[in-house]
Amino acid sequence: MAQNIYDDPEFQAGYRRLARSEQGLAGAPEWPTVRRLLPDLSGRDVVDLGCGYGAFARWAAEQHAAVVDAFDVSEQMLRRAAELTEPGKVIRYARADLDTLQLPSASYDVAYSALVLHYLTDLPRFVGMVHAALRPGGGFVFTCEHPVYTAPTVAAWIEHDGRRAWPLDRYGVEGERVRDWLAPGVRKQHRILATLLNALLDAGFTIRRVEESVPSEEQITADPTLAEERDRPMFLMVAADR
Amino acid sequence: MAQNIYDDPEFQAGYRRLARSEQGLAGAPEWPTVRRLLPDLSGRDVVDLGCGYGAFARWAAEQHAAVVDAFDVSEQMLRRAAELTEPGKVIRYARADLDTLQLPSASYDVAYSALVLHYLTDLPRFVGMVHAALRPGGGFVFTCEHPVYTAPTVAAWIEHDGRRAWPLDRYGVEGERVRDWLAPGVRKQHRILATLLNALLDAGFTIRRVEESVPSEEQITADPTLAEERDRPMFLMVAADR
Repeated sequence: MAQNIYDDPEFQAGYRRLARSEQGLAGAPEWPTVRRLLPDLSGRDVVDLGCGYGAFARWAAEQHAAVVDAFDVSEQMLRRAAELTEPGKVIRYARADLDTLQLPSASYDVAYSALVLHYLTDLPRFVGMVHAALRPGGGFVFTCEHPVYTAPTVAAWIEHDGRRAWPLDRYGVEGERVRDWLAPGVRKQHRILATLLNALLDAGFTIRRVEESVPSEEQITADPTLAEERDRPMFLMVAADR
Repeated sequence: MAQNIYDDPEFQAGYRRLARSEQGLAGAPEWPTVRRLLPDLSGRDVVDLGCGYGAFARWAAEQHAAVVDAFDVSEQMLRRAAELTEPGKVIRYARADLDTLQLPSASYDVAYSALVLHYLTDLPRFVGMVHAALRPGGGFVFTCEHPVYTAPTVAAWIEHDGRRAWPLDRYGVEGERVRDWLAPGVRKQHRILATLLNALLDAGFTIRRVEESVPSEEQITADPTLAEERDRPMFLMVAADR
């Protein structure tokens, strides 16, 4: 199974202070792009794979999704998600290791997974499982760390010739990368772009749209720290149809 | 129109000495991957957009393609292509600016374009034109410089912390990049991956396969200079179906 770093106390304490944790979807710069990738959720059965604090699940419920099954490996995040969620019958939180979760066949119209794929150790299994869990015509929208972001030996900006640069290396060497992010020893899986997209195609998905996190001028004006995201993309976002 | 650097005498002199010029397809490390993307050409009508010295066109003729229409902007390359080609009726070389070329509708089964897209100034027009020129069920296979390769302010390896690194910056800033490669002032167009793939989707193509140039262990053993290509991909390769 994938490492459950989200229940590490040091990691969790740091994670709770991120803008995307405190502000939910509004605190995620990539959300406006992701939202455009999503189909209308009204009356649909939705599964959220890696729900964290449940921000997307609650948004899906607001969009009048019929059902939102929301899974996460972290007990602490699920507890907080439940605290933040109004009682109701639409959202069902459950704990699951996404590297082994099996969903019932042809049970959902929309599958959503935000910033989880780069933790999973068996991508073809996961993508195949999601494909089987969708009804024909259903859609899968995911975000993950961009291969350019996961690749380097040392994933940190450098100064070169008076410019900020991202020291890309080992792009073609797939496999584990150990990072110090919020806590030491966070284990991620680096996969090249071709591997990510071909896993979808091999599972039978049709690619509908591909996006990369490039901040707009307006976003950089509102938050100048986003300027560096123009120099190398942090996230890949894909919409695929069964 | 795109710059015609290939008829610049200094550029041409350097280009003729490249392994891919002297050895044809066998001198292009990405060819084994590209070949796997191609459908069977036997009996098919093929168009080669940016044929250079005609190595692919001759290979397509050897595969028993019915017709190979091969276009290039460079007079010198077309002259050399004709010299290298046995007289016959299958291959038809013609000069064309790919930024303005119009092909007849539904006339080809396979469109091929190697290392040309990054010179074109109007990608949506080109991709739409290729889509219209293919018969329903036809395939488009192209290679182009990888966005990670075209992006940086200075596209050259650096040493950092004792390691080779590719100083990625300006990934999200699309547009012209001027390079000194074989001759000074070569003008290329940087586009992010999302732009390249979405141009295909917008034109009505279905993406069948995506590949990136990552050399195999066997290739690196045979040619150790390829090792650096494992640190950052130079080419993107895509197969799409009408």
